[in-house]
Amino acid sequence: MNLPALINGQPADSIAITDRGLQYGDGLFETIAVVDGRLLCWPEHMARLEEGCRRLSLLLPDTQQLHDEAQQVASDAGRAVLKLTLTRGSAGRGYAPAPAAIPNRIISLHPWPEYPQQYHTEGVRVRLCTNRLASNPLLAGIKHLNRLEQVLARGEWSEPDVAEGLMLDGDGNVIEGTMSNLFVVRHGILETPDVVNAGIAGIIRGRVLAAAHDLDIDAMIATLDLHDIEAAEELFLCNSLIGIWPVRAVGDKTFAPGALTRRLRDYLVRQDWISPD
Amino acid sequence: MNLPALINGQPADSIAITDRGLQYGDGLFETIAVVDGRLLCWPEHMARLEEGCRRLSLLLPDTQQLHDEAQQVASDAGRAVLKLTLTRGSAGRGYAPAPAAIPNRIISLHPWPEYPQQYHTEGVRVRLCTNRLASNPLLAGIKHLNRLEQVLARGEWSEPDVAEGLMLDGDGNVIEGTMSNLFVVRHGILETPDVVNAGIAGIIRGRVLAAAHDLDIDAMIATLDLHDIEAAEELFLCNSLIGIWPVRAVGDKTFAPGALTRRLRDYLVRQDWISPD
Repeated sequence: MNLPALINGQPADSIAITDRGLQYGDGLFETIAVVDGRLLCWPEHMARLEEGCRRLSLLLPDTQQLHDEAQQVASDAGRAVLKLTLTRGSAGRGYAPAPAAIPNRIISLHPWPEYPQQYHTEGVRVRLCTNRLASNPLLAGIKHLNRLEQVLARGEWSEPDVAEGLMLDGDGNVIEGTMSNLFVVRHGILETPDVVNAGIAGIIRGRVLAAAHDLDIDAMIATLDLHDIEAAEELFLCNSLIGIWPVRAVGDKTFAPGALTRRLRDYLVRQDWISPD
Repeated sequence: MNLPALINGQPADSIAITDRGLQYGDGLFETIAVVDGRLLCWPEHMARLEEGCRRLSLLLPDTQQLHDEAQQVASDAGRAVLKLTLTRGSAGRGYAPAPAAIPNRIISLHPWPEYPQQYHTEGVRVRLCTNRLASNPLLAGIKHLNRLEQVLARGEWSEPDVAEGLMLDGDGNVIEGTMSNLFVVRHGILETPDVVNAGIAGIIRGRVLAAAHDLDIDAMIATLDLHDIEAAEELFLCNSLIGIWPVRAVGDKTFAPGALTRRLRDYLVRQDWISPD
């Protein structure tokens, strides 16, 4: 793989071992869909990055500069994945976040993940993960670089026909997938778990809620346990790359792709918030 | 700072941006005291690294090779800090821990932290952190690279006369310092918090418990809240670099350095488990 990457605006493919991103996972990232050279949901990605910087007391780089660099990396791309990583930069050993450390911005391009086309039409099979999401309101919601919980959860299965795993918090509430947010439709109402104590406030999760508003669909943030999931009329997963996947099975329990899921997906595609395929 | 570093046995100071240590904090580290070229508590560090590898399903490198490389880096050092980082290596984007990824071993030397000498004799001032440790039994105890909780907690203060901050779990139990383990003496019994749900099983914590056994001192793993801390007869912190620091104040509550603390510290120094100064 020899796709382009920039570190602080310069072509590069390695970073100092003193970087705090490596040492402590001290940083943030965004995973952005590129379609025909366009960076989908760029303003929303920047808003989450800004919130992450606020939480971690990281200096937010000039977002126009970030945009220019991202465009430079993505310019020749048809459909690709752009990853933007922002670390606290290099500093001495020790946890204290040296105020003088200058953040490093790493922008790299990656191949588009080739999922089967029927994931969009027929839905995906999902499992339940043993690894749980720990609750920490000061770190929840933002997309920081401490992702061992997701790595271990994703390592729980290798069956190629299982597309995603659902993760619970310590209290047994369903929070999200390892790489996606979860929505359910119950009694005709669209619901998604809260991410104030655990989980990531996904960009497409936000766009689905915006779409529900635009389309006059009742939607709410809810506390959901496994019984609620099993009782759902529709179930779907979303992220910036998969767009929206209906769920057709959670373990042994099966679901049919629903009308509301399809309607939301069509709307997000029309808004250019997700890739059409 | 131009101290030596080896990556996979070769002199190097940077690592691929595709390394999962940077991408997800997907790895482990050990911070080892070097005194006159000797690597203190090497077997104990290797035992914890091995347990970390087991938990993260990481391939443990040949520990004899690690030892040779660590000795090579530390050979000319008087007193220094050796940091050994083991990442899952490079792989494609995505959380799935590619089984084919080959771990990267990073060994670097750092200056010994120059703390005031009276920290050992008169004790240190400690504060209480707002940032808490989330509970996750699958990640607790091991020294993995997801350290944002410690980074944020350590960022809460900059007063130079506050040497450490105590961290609670979500239930309000005192677990450890941002970079150290905690011991208390209550009713003549040595107690330290459990680290099965949160916190790190520190090497010196283990040596202090071993010393208590050798010296016939009653010791136990305990659940401790802030009232228990304030009621303690003695209080001390420990890690591989500081050795043992008596605590002389937690916020406004003051303590006197105690006889048991001194006795344990003397024993650890004699065993060559910690640096004498």
